[in-house]
Amino acid sequence: MILQRIEKIFNALNADAVFTTADDLRFYLTGFESTFGCVLTDKNGTTFYTDSRYLEAAQKKLSPAGVKVEEMPRGKRPSDLLEGYKKVAVPFSKITAGEYLAYSKKAELCDSAAAFDDAMAIKEQCELDCIKAACEVTDKSFVQLLGRIKEGMSENDLAAELEYLMRLNGASGTSFSTIAAFGKNASVPHHETGSDKLKFGDSILIDFGCKVGGYCSDCTRTFLFGDDKKHEEFKKAYADVLKAHMLVKEKLACGMTGGQADAIARDYLKTRGLDKYFTHALGHGVGVNIHEAPKVSPKSEDVLKDGMVFSDEPGVYIAGELGIRIEDTVTLEGGKAVSLTDSDKKLLIL
Amino acid sequence: MILQRIEKIFNALNADAVFTTADDLRFYLTGFESTFGCVLTDKNGTTFYTDSRYLEAAQKKLSPAGVKVEEMPRGKRPSDLLEGYKKVAVPFSKITAGEYLAYSKKAELCDSAAAFDDAMAIKEQCELDCIKAACEVTDKSFVQLLGRIKEGMSENDLAAELEYLMRLNGASGTSFSTIAAFGKNASVPHHETGSDKLKFGDSILIDFGCKVGGYCSDCTRTFLFGDDKKHEEFKKAYADVLKAHMLVKEKLACGMTGGQADAIARDYLKTRGLDKYFTHALGHGVGVNIHEAPKVSPKSEDVLKDGMVFSDEPGVYIAGELGIRIEDTVTLEGGKAVSLTDSDKKLLIL
Repeated sequence: MILQRIEKIFNALNADAVFTTADDLRFYLTGFESTFGCVLTDKNGTTFYTDSRYLEAAQKKLSPAGVKVEEMPRGKRPSDLLEGYKKVAVPFSKITAGEYLAYSKKAELCDSAAAFDDAMAIKEQCELDCIKAACEVTDKSFVQLLGRIKEGMSENDLAAELEYLMRLNGASGTSFSTIAAFGKNASVPHHETGSDKLKFGDSILIDFGCKVGGYCSDCTRTFLFGDDKKHEEFKKAYADVLKAHMLVKEKLACGMTGGQADAIARDYLKTRGLDKYFTHALGHGVGVNIHEAPKVSPKSEDVLKDGMVFSDEPGVYIAGELGIRIEDTVTLEGGKAVSLTDSDKKLLIL
Repeated sequence: MILQRIEKIFNALNADAVFTTADDLRFYLTGFESTFGCVLTDKNGTTFYTDSRYLEAAQKKLSPAGVKVEEMPRGKRPSDLLEGYKKVAVPFSKITAGEYLAYSKKAELCDSAAAFDDAMAIKEQCELDCIKAACEVTDKSFVQLLGRIKEGMSENDLAAELEYLMRLNGASGTSFSTIAAFGKNASVPHHETGSDKLKFGDSILIDFGCKVGGYCSDCTRTFLFGDDKKHEEFKKAYADVLKAHMLVKEKLACGMTGGQADAIARDYLKTRGLDKYFTHALGHGVGVNIHEAPKVSPKSEDVLKDGMVFSDEPGVYIAGELGIRIEDTVTLEGGKAVSLTDSDKKLLIL
């Protein structure tokens, strides 16, 4: 499986060697979590260079898979490993300018980033299993959270509770900093979770996700903390956002572009006069990284395929008034959308 | 204050403009937390370009400080902002190869990374205040954690409790993924926190830290969960590591190099026959980033100065047997070390 991944990348690139030091790409290529290492592939095979901390565990995992594991030679820099190659593929968006300049002294460089994007966008079964596990922790933790929401708690308190529950339910951590926004704070799509306290009648928007086995989940729910009868506009907009969200799941099909998928939600919100308040993309790929290929945004020409995983997250933000976003992580299976996070989306009034 | 920081960087560099998109440097230059933006300084002043989400808050904070705030022009890329300059300073270790290539088309580039490292290493009072606040949350949460440690809990559970406490005590998040290692797991300095369960007689090593106001803390404690009377070697090594840790605080002085500071601990451990088990550097700078300047390692020639903040973390790791690390975040004040994390380091037996 590991070797197939590596071969796919190597074959996609016209280079004598493929080389990466980037954490996410190294993890993708080896399936092995480490904070330091390089992976070098040439026509003779693949070597994972790491330090003494990881050597034993890496050998145990990767030697049977046909990957050589070696300790990074003492006094050598990663760039020294490129000695002797004519053309080496490295990911231009994942190495620093300093690394680029050092590598350039050793070999001609070409960009491997697109090859990784394409390969990583289509998930293997074992990758889907990790994402599903992360989504299950996400759903379970959200339901448990509902019983712990109390008047007077701060956005920070609520985020702390949710992150704690995800940890206890088996996550290794969050996939990004939890966003919790009360009332009109939610009208800022990337509100910074703060110390505002929850009052009766507030809406609550939570955007959260966790990591299991190195893979991410992503989910947003918006609901009411009591109904103070001032929520007519909110309820109407909620129904429209939910309809847009569900239409995407219904109409999504393999072969659509990311732009066409985005248009399903955007066009519907237009019929409701709300498209001008939908100020971000419909979604983004989810996997090793919380944001990766495919792009699911108005101009995206990325073609959606079975095995891809991405978010379906239409939203409506009316400055100083309200913010609503409803997001699930979805995958394409047999040409159709399957929701991986799937806690109830009927408007919840606590 | 903000303008002073910017001027310091600008004056240190022989360039027509200083430009950065990097999250940490942008935060350092503006004191404003954002996930997108660029800071451009030339002889006429400084402009912070960001998107609509941050515009209002950034103007409120930065305009009185003399920094112009503008929305990133639509359809423009960061590289377009370099148009018209002859020589621009950018941080080679913080931009990607792709950015480097795009910027190179607009202007001659020089490296600003060392100027930022030097400036950021010396903390202003307001930066020290944030680090002290983070260290206080760290100490308080550790003491609260002790009452929650129970037989049968996993390393993950313990890390979850500690991270939850830090969040509730006011942290915006962790400064890195908490390391919790039970028993001989601690002999791997960067053990991956897992599902092993706590047993009577286990040693516990916790390496943890949090962020307050954008600044980090860093702390490690090692202690015993009950004394099964099999800990003679552990207790001896603990006393030696603690002595090495305290000697550093006692002997540290402005003007020493990072290498000389490291040698205080390393030389002492050598007299105890333990230096071969001290397999990492004594410490690293702590600030906006959990690892920054100065280097406090055997070969470091970085000169230690008042206002610097770094870790003092000697450790001893005997493979398959034990691991002990004792770490505080310290600062230099009036030429001497002051401990910022400072919970009790006498060997604790729960």
